[in-house]
Amino acid sequence: MYIPTLDDMLAAHERIKPHIRRTPIRTSDYLNELTGAELFFKCENFQEPGAFKVRGASNAVFGLDEEQAKKGVATHSSGNHASCLSYAAMLRGIPCNVVMPRTAPQAKKDTVRRYGGKITECEPSTSSREETFAKVQAETGGDFVHPYNDPRVIAGQGTCSKEMIEQVDGLDFAVAPIGGGGMISGTCLTLSNLAPETKIIAAEPEQADDAYRSFKAGHIIADDAPKTIADGLLVPLKDLTWHFVSNHVSDIYTASDPEIIEAMKIIWKHLRIVMEPSSAVPLATILKNPDTFKGKRVGIIITGGNVDLDKLPWLNT
Amino acid sequence: MYIPTLDDMLAAHERIKPHIRRTPIRTSDYLNELTGAELFFKCENFQEPGAFKVRGASNAVFGLDEEQAKKGVATHSSGNHASCLSYAAMLRGIPCNVVMPRTAPQAKKDTVRRYGGKITECEPSTSSREETFAKVQAETGGDFVHPYNDPRVIAGQGTCSKEMIEQVDGLDFAVAPIGGGGMISGTCLTLSNLAPETKIIAAEPEQADDAYRSFKAGHIIADDAPKTIADGLLVPLKDLTWHFVSNHVSDIYTASDPEIIEAMKIIWKHLRIVMEPSSAVPLATILKNPDTFKGKRVGIIITGGNVDLDKLPWLNT
Repeated sequence: MYIPTLDDMLAAHERIKPHIRRTPIRTSDYLNELTGAELFFKCENFQEPGAFKVRGASNAVFGLDEEQAKKGVATHSSGNHASCLSYAAMLRGIPCNVVMPRTAPQAKKDTVRRYGGKITECEPSTSSREETFAKVQAETGGDFVHPYNDPRVIAGQGTCSKEMIEQVDGLDFAVAPIGGGGMISGTCLTLSNLAPETKIIAAEPEQADDAYRSFKAGHIIADDAPKTIADGLLVPLKDLTWHFVSNHVSDIYTASDPEIIEAMKIIWKHLRIVMEPSSAVPLATILKNPDTFKGKRVGIIITGGNVDLDKLPWLNT
Repeated sequence: MYIPTLDDMLAAHERIKPHIRRTPIRTSDYLNELTGAELFFKCENFQEPGAFKVRGASNAVFGLDEEQAKKGVATHSSGNHASCLSYAAMLRGIPCNVVMPRTAPQAKKDTVRRYGGKITECEPSTSSREETFAKVQAETGGDFVHPYNDPRVIAGQGTCSKEMIEQVDGLDFAVAPIGGGGMISGTCLTLSNLAPETKIIAAEPEQADDAYRSFKAGHIIADDAPKTIADGLLVPLKDLTWHFVSNHVSDIYTASDPEIIEAMKIIWKHLRIVMEPSSAVPLATILKNPDTFKGKRVGIIITGGNVDLDKLPWLNT
């Protein structure tokens, strides 16, 4: 297991800068009053493909040597990693093969195809996915870019908090959602080196709280088929992300689905940005733990903005 | 009739800078491909009270002398001007009286009150509004700040396009929605002086096209009770805004309500910002007139972001 270093993250930032956006920070006097804290929202939903995952994906894609680049990249994902990897591969002009369950939403498949990704469908089971992926990789020779348990991906995600501390001084806390732990690991990598005084809080849906339970138990515990509105956060920790979580995260807070939906609506209304349920988990946990954050400067990573506008979670449609 | 000058606009910017946000520009590769143009969206929906109207309102409020300031300001409005004037008055700590029809949405009344504005309700008719407003003004001595036909307001709105041309070079077009004409007049004031090569296009709902018909006829024509989803654009031109529109606007383009709703959804999905139907009229007209804008650099003012998240126009709820 290779653990990415500060130098890897700094090299990643130089490598991906031409291909990603330096996303802005949004603030709201209203939200500051509501929480008694100073909140700084880093808007990764404003990346062109709508998610921070373009950072790790671009780092992997643009780090390939010419020979490997010809064969392209491959992954399995039904979410933002699939579209962000396709997007990065399109920018470099190399093939991207994605294995997706045939049951994945049509909109997700459309986005991958719009960016030139080639989809191979599998059954919605782990065995079918692994079997199909092994076949695709053998046929194409594409370099496997795991959605989060990959040092190149973690180094790429770490560039987000690097920008955040360049944009905002003296953060007491950084709060980001946790699923597989890619963003949180990148945040740990960067802040433990460049801003060790900033505490890192991971925010997780109560209904998919495997990272919370792992953190308390001291070893990885995987959920069995978790179900939450925050559908970007369903996957379990792996060895590399567990390394960062167990060594550098201060605490993991959880919030219920109704609390996540309420926080999401507050952000849409007062920050006036379109973002995903997963990205609302940090604010939901801050609203739930006011004493922790009162009077503090808090950086929050809005991880993504790809949401079905016809099915908003606060509307019964 | 006093016509505001470039110096008035420059003074306005110095006056209001501490109280407003220098809002960011958003771009989208996807929207550029879709239109064949380079589009730059100036996000006035990111002002704290959610609309560009905080510029004109702040210029009026912070320009009052001490004696008048004690008596505060007054207006009649059921929209963003009411909340933005209340917000500016709250920042200066002076009274703000607003006459609103009793039928105005509860959310709009709540926002005005949250900012400390005092509401006096009238019947939803012009005669009742004028009578009630005269009474309120006589009682309070509040300085009348018209929503748009006021040189201080127009000078304030002009600061938006001043920032836009500082943020984006070489614009071929600036496109903004037109209702009463406050934003368009401010844009004319600024660009005719500082960027005379930039053509100004006003964008108007077909179903409230009084400005379009006035522009073609050469004199002000008022609509009788227009009805459109773009509910910020229902009011007619007045003498001061007519002066700017008739002298400096290159053309007025219109779009239907379904076209406005489609453009709004495209912006939410691809720019990932929350904005009002009124602010989607410019993109709707650009999509409708591709040959005009192809290959051009186009600045678009996203005028506001106060929208009822429970009643989105593309959903039948």
